[in-house]
Amino acid sequence: MTTDIESPYLLTPGPLTTSSETKQVMLRDWGSRDAAFIRINRELRAHVVSIAGGGDDLTCVPVQGSGTFAVEAMLAGFVPRDGKILLVINGAYGHRMAKICDYLGRDFLIYETPEDTPPDPAAISDRLAVDSKITHVAIVHCETTSGILNPIEAVAAAVAGQGRRLLIDAMSSFGALPLDMGQVACDAVAASANKCLEGVPGIGFVVCREAALSKTKGNAHSLSLDLYDQWHAMEGNGQWRFTPPTHVVAALHQALAEHVAEGGVAGRGARYRRNCDVLVAGMRAMGFETLLPDALQAPIIVTFHMPIDPAFNFQVFYDRLAAKGYVIYPGKLAAADSFRIGCIGRLDETVIGGAVDAIRETLKQMGVQRCGPLAA
Amino acid sequence: MTTDIESPYLLTPGPLTTSSETKQVMLRDWGSRDAAFIRINRELRAHVVSIAGGGDDLTCVPVQGSGTFAVEAMLAGFVPRDGKILLVINGAYGHRMAKICDYLGRDFLIYETPEDTPPDPAAISDRLAVDSKITHVAIVHCETTSGILNPIEAVAAAVAGQGRRLLIDAMSSFGALPLDMGQVACDAVAASANKCLEGVPGIGFVVCREAALSKTKGNAHSLSLDLYDQWHAMEGNGQWRFTPPTHVVAALHQALAEHVAEGGVAGRGARYRRNCDVLVAGMRAMGFETLLPDALQAPIIVTFHMPIDPAFNFQVFYDRLAAKGYVIYPGKLAAADSFRIGCIGRLDETVIGGAVDAIRETLKQMGVQRCGPLAA
Repeated sequence: MTTDIESPYLLTPGPLTTSSETKQVMLRDWGSRDAAFIRINRELRAHVVSIAGGGDDLTCVPVQGSGTFAVEAMLAGFVPRDGKILLVINGAYGHRMAKICDYLGRDFLIYETPEDTPPDPAAISDRLAVDSKITHVAIVHCETTSGILNPIEAVAAAVAGQGRRLLIDAMSSFGALPLDMGQVACDAVAASANKCLEGVPGIGFVVCREAALSKTKGNAHSLSLDLYDQWHAMEGNGQWRFTPPTHVVAALHQALAEHVAEGGVAGRGARYRRNCDVLVAGMRAMGFETLLPDALQAPIIVTFHMPIDPAFNFQVFYDRLAAKGYVIYPGKLAAADSFRIGCIGRLDETVIGGAVDAIRETLKQMGVQRCGPLAA
Repeated sequence: MTTDIESPYLLTPGPLTTSSETKQVMLRDWGSRDAAFIRINRELRAHVVSIAGGGDDLTCVPVQGSGTFAVEAMLAGFVPRDGKILLVINGAYGHRMAKICDYLGRDFLIYETPEDTPPDPAAISDRLAVDSKITHVAIVHCETTSGILNPIEAVAAAVAGQGRRLLIDAMSSFGALPLDMGQVACDAVAASANKCLEGVPGIGFVVCREAALSKTKGNAHSLSLDLYDQWHAMEGNGQWRFTPPTHVVAALHQALAEHVAEGGVAGRGARYRRNCDVLVAGMRAMGFETLLPDALQAPIIVTFHMPIDPAFNFQVFYDRLAAKGYVIYPGKLAAADSFRIGCIGRLDETVIGGAVDAIRETLKQMGVQRCGPLAA
């Protein structure tokens, strides 16, 4: 995998390492209302829809900003002001949806499981059965807090079984883990340019059913984040309502071409799976332990327990790895004393192998001998 | 001026032509929570504050998205939920603020003048004097609808004279036309990376007084656009709350260095003034007439009346100019039958002279003989 010589490899949940080609298309300026750029928008939207299953009833509405902007736009648009949401939470991004609902003034209920525990679809059914006011359920597909993969098909079936509507935050999974909206009953899926699609950050999008979207007029709390208005304008003239980040849009257009070249969702997912396997095997060989059992681990980001060895200092570890060209996620989990390493972006198993070698070398320099979380 | 060979020159109100150097810094990927990127954020914010006058009481809060996102964040943050805004309007961007206030549910009153007429500060005073419920006044500095420069100092004095707070949309003027917050009494100024600062689109920002900002907690309607929360988080750890468009941020950092090298606001403004003069003189020599008298014309974007000649067709004119490498603004004004050509971005008088030549050649090819708006 070639990236630019100066860039460190980013082993984080985003921003990610992107290809040279994706960055190079940013070397030109685009008129956002010019025909050439309108064509890029049209192709990009159609391409994203195809990744979500490609049904004729689907559309893609892009939104300027980070993924959170798209999730906020989705919740504000799809849940009517008098609606009520069941939030299925097992990490920070689930809690962020609750925070958004607080801002929106939308009524909501939380069903929470620990960060290492997937939700139980039967428990979701039960909650819906006893509360007829709940109109929508929202869930994160892959919680990057821990790296856990939530059972989206079973949750969707439970929600549909109770006749409610499902909204999915698929930020860190879209494009690498299958999510076919033809199979999974949901109204909308929010994701971003800068995760598994390997674009640069600056836009998110919501893929949704036009029939559901067409009923959302007037729901939005914000002009900038009004999904219905954005969709309506874009369908009219192919343009964004307000200046789009043209270079970021062009980069995503290029990144999508590379997604096809790699074999789409299956090909991308397979590479990330190899990255994850090499990372986990290498770390376990040193004595590290993962937070999650393998069955729950999505090949997106892996959480490792902190070593018990008193010679281990996370900031020193982080800084030395960064100096070697590998930037890992600097944050820690709330619940468990742990750190995280991402497997996504324009990285392959050779890069991940290099990262594992750099980690081994760094630990040796630091004098860390016991990498497990428990005292011997 | 060097730009990339493939890019057309963008003679629009944005996105604009940017320098090669500004685009080239986008060839690397940044970890948004890494120390190197945090340093860029810090420098960028301080630099923007210095352009606004540099007072110790000022801060810069960046916001993902287009300029409208920053304006919405400013209005939602600074005007309390029980506040009332007097909107001073003479173009589309003034009307956009009214639309935002509708979404926000903020009470507002409009003082509107025609697109070619600046507001009268005495009229603003009168409206404030008779309505004590008005807490804030909001105005666009340079209305890119027509290109008119509004008398911001006089308006600020009128607002301060009545003891009210002023909010300024300086989107298309910031960095090229003087706006010293040490001299102009206002709480906040919203602007964008991609106008006179010559960065690429994807972020806006609000420069504001910390004393005023610190009182805005809880006002925002949106998590994504909560200026107070963004400021509070950034002051804490130097990071954006949610993934920033890292490449766009790095490009603005580079563009700001070029702003200094050009002599800051004075140097940048002088180049745009020369661009504007060359454009207007060249167009007048062909018989075109400007919408605005020279005294009201900001050197940002110029509105020309459509030629009366039946051989003139705007779409053909636009397409042929684009084919020659000059993209002008494709939209038309609501009030007057006119079109617009921008003077900003990484363009100098040689480029503008080339554009004028291309226009002359295009008109000749089209067989247009009378470029004035009136029958002979």
